[in-house]
Amino acid sequence: MKKLEHIGIAVKNLEESEILFAKLLGTKSYKREAVESEGVITSFFLVGNVKIELLSATHPESPIAKFIEKKGEGIHHLAFEVEDIDGQIENKKAEGFELISKMPKDGADNKRIAFLHPKSTGGVLTEMCEEKKK
Amino acid sequence: MKKLEHIGIAVKNLEESEILFAKLLGTKSYKREAVESEGVITSFFLVGNVKIELLSATHPESPIAKFIEKKGEGIHHLAFEVEDIDGQIENKKAEGFELISKMPKDGADNKRIAFLHPKSTGGVLTEMCEEKKK
Repeated sequence: MKKLEHIGIAVKNLEESEILFAKLLGTKSYKREAVESEGVITSFFLVGNVKIELLSATHPESPIAKFIEKKGEGIHHLAFEVEDIDGQIENKKAEGFELISKMPKDGADNKRIAFLHPKSTGGVLTEMCEEKKK
Repeated sequence: MKKLEHIGIAVKNLEESEILFAKLLGTKSYKREAVESEGVITSFFLVGNVKIELLSATHPESPIAKFIEKKGEGIHHLAFEVEDIDGQIENKKAEGFELISKMPKDGADNKRIAFLHPKSTGGVLTEMCEEKKK
């Protein structure tokens, strides 16, 4: 993995959490973005060169709604930047990690993303992401 | 908060997890360090400029043992570098955050550290840390 790109945090109420995390981090959210395929609205903060991405569900079947139901609000995933996400998916599979989806999907922030299942990564839901080529 | 300094991950077995995370992150642990007051042995990885700190318990009363018992292995806390940790403790208290201890404690990696309670930070156990002055 090249670098930590962002940390995803599951929240119930985006407006209230934006206020809380602005106070906690000492910086305001600089953008919101919906990812309809995942049923989430995201809100981004920048601390140093790492993004904090708040994730709120848009409907009860959203993975974020289900996560909060099961575990409560809190850290949802770590996302690492990779080069060649398609190659990395193959490498990680060959190394014994379990991919949640076989192909990269479109994520927020102009990224192609793929998740490794936490049961293969010590309980850490891990996203690999790559900036989409223009 | 100035920057993300490290991410703490609770693990059951340090040896096995060092192998797993070396494979996951594509880089090896560069040091281990015991923090006796907390009942943990830590193991550090560097990805870009962020550290991943594996945390394993040295006895059943360790906060890490209790965390794993309750929630399983996985992300334990986020640690942010601050300037003037004593001042930051006062600021965070004044802003309504709950401190786990009133005074900074000694942490791994030559740091003074203080934790904010996750019930005041959207479920995210948050550490503030400052490099000890020489």
